[in-house]
Amino acid sequence: MLYLIGLGLSYKSDITVRGLEAVRKCSAVYLEHYTSILMAASKEELEEYYGSEVILADRELVETGSEIILRDAREKDVAFLVVGDPFGATTHTDLVLRAKRENIPVEIIHNASVMNAVGACGLQLYNFGQTISMVFFTDSWRPDSWYEKILENRKIGLHTLVLLDIKVKEQSIENMARGRLIYEPPRYMSISQCCEQLLEIEEVKGTKAYTPDTPAVAISRLGSDRQTFKSGTIKELSEYDSGEPLHSLVLLGRQCHELELEYLLEFCDDREKFKNDVIKDQEFFKPAPWVPPVEEDDD
Amino acid sequence: MLYLIGLGLSYKSDITVRGLEAVRKCSAVYLEHYTSILMAASKEELEEYYGSEVILADRELVETGSEIILRDAREKDVAFLVVGDPFGATTHTDLVLRAKRENIPVEIIHNASVMNAVGACGLQLYNFGQTISMVFFTDSWRPDSWYEKILENRKIGLHTLVLLDIKVKEQSIENMARGRLIYEPPRYMSISQCCEQLLEIEEVKGTKAYTPDTPAVAISRLGSDRQTFKSGTIKELSEYDSGEPLHSLVLLGRQCHELELEYLLEFCDDREKFKNDVIKDQEFFKPAPWVPPVEEDDD
Repeated sequence: MLYLIGLGLSYKSDITVRGLEAVRKCSAVYLEHYTSILMAASKEELEEYYGSEVILADRELVETGSEIILRDAREKDVAFLVVGDPFGATTHTDLVLRAKRENIPVEIIHNASVMNAVGACGLQLYNFGQTISMVFFTDSWRPDSWYEKILENRKIGLHTLVLLDIKVKEQSIENMARGRLIYEPPRYMSISQCCEQLLEIEEVKGTKAYTPDTPAVAISRLGSDRQTFKSGTIKELSEYDSGEPLHSLVLLGRQCHELELEYLLEFCDDREKFKNDVIKDQEFFKPAPWVPPVEEDDD
Repeated sequence: MLYLIGLGLSYKSDITVRGLEAVRKCSAVYLEHYTSILMAASKEELEEYYGSEVILADRELVETGSEIILRDAREKDVAFLVVGDPFGATTHTDLVLRAKRENIPVEIIHNASVMNAVGACGLQLYNFGQTISMVFFTDSWRPDSWYEKILENRKIGLHTLVLLDIKVKEQSIENMARGRLIYEPPRYMSISQCCEQLLEIEEVKGTKAYTPDTPAVAISRLGSDRQTFKSGTIKELSEYDSGEPLHSLVLLGRQCHELELEYLLEFCDDREKFKNDVIKDQEFFKPAPWVPPVEEDDD
């Protein structure tokens, strides 16, 4: 049996009771360790809590070596633990599909993930459009396919959740070239870096998916006791010190209801200014009024 | 202290360990009982599990009488339990906001909700647009504001999650008029009824947000051991017997990736037909090609 178990957002005790019961009876326990991290618990703490060894599964193990996990699951109970919910990342859908095809029974134990817990910032989940990922820019690689998606969301007035890059167990180009298995320290994108990259691409593209004055909400350490929200414009948040990871950002859509705004006002520096920023942004991005077609002049 | 605790989707043990610890130390426990239901546990089972009485909170108590909850929370630890995650419905944002303004400490304990667990059908969460709610049509009330939202989502190729109406503790019009507190038995919308209402409004509007042949996935009893997925066209699913509640539906967007499709193929009657239905729908709803502007003739 293969159990895919969501760990939730922060504490070891964010696992569900059903999830904990399952992991405690498994004879092999893998922890997915490259798309997110559990903020308030180390590997050792988890091992003590579960009463068994925890094997950290990096991208390589999951994407190329999932055969090991499936082989184990054919004979015994195996837990594959995922921070958040098991269906947050593509690779896990793939793992389930492969298990099914090999007739290995699979049980999914869901949990909160940023995709639904983001509602804690006060914005309504049903007003969100597609989610985008912001990766660390390098000198030669500044991907911006997310820009079009923000534009699409904002055209129809929807909020956009921006997931910020994390780099765990990455090699430097030099170490990779020389085949040295030396890994860089983990890196987590900050709110300010994300906002700077947003501003840079808007300047390059210039098609106004948003402006520096577009309101946004910074979400830091969601689900932990050090959770903070900060609302401000993209420009303001590009200078905001968001502190320890993990972070996410939401760009506001035009469909921002009164109750949503009221909630966000609790998190800004200057309530009057933020309220005005929201109104200005809504005005600026209002769809053009419908103009009746002009009749052709015949002479 | 006010604890807002998500219960997850189905079992009493879907609560998180942290959530259970909190609820067991509370001296008053309310269970929100009108936007969703916990499928596999009764009030009595929950009471035994928590070791305390559970007060069912209907819409009336939460929206008009939340003063009682807040008054309790000023003096002691109070748990407000919500099926799924606490931030699924507007009223709970309102409750948190009111508590904050009265300086009552609030702790949120998140959990899975349909908004993220829907990923279990194999569709990627970041490809979803805004979520819509489908309510029971009556002879005189057939609301269709959701239609425009599906159109907007599908224009940019996104999937649409459709939440199906549930009616708990509703009065008949006659009983309401006579002030009799007699409630109708609970009703849960089925997949077939939802699809019939989709088809009816498309016929009325005729602006092709979708067609009867648009592919969709029916999600039933998500997170329980009787969870089922069924993929088919809207027309096919309008004749599908989805069994016991709860149900949700996803309308496919054009941005349906290969791995997503592979997953959905596991849930359909005829793989070849479904694959073709997806391709035909993608073709039909493909954005019109860009045509260069024609130069005006000068003579």
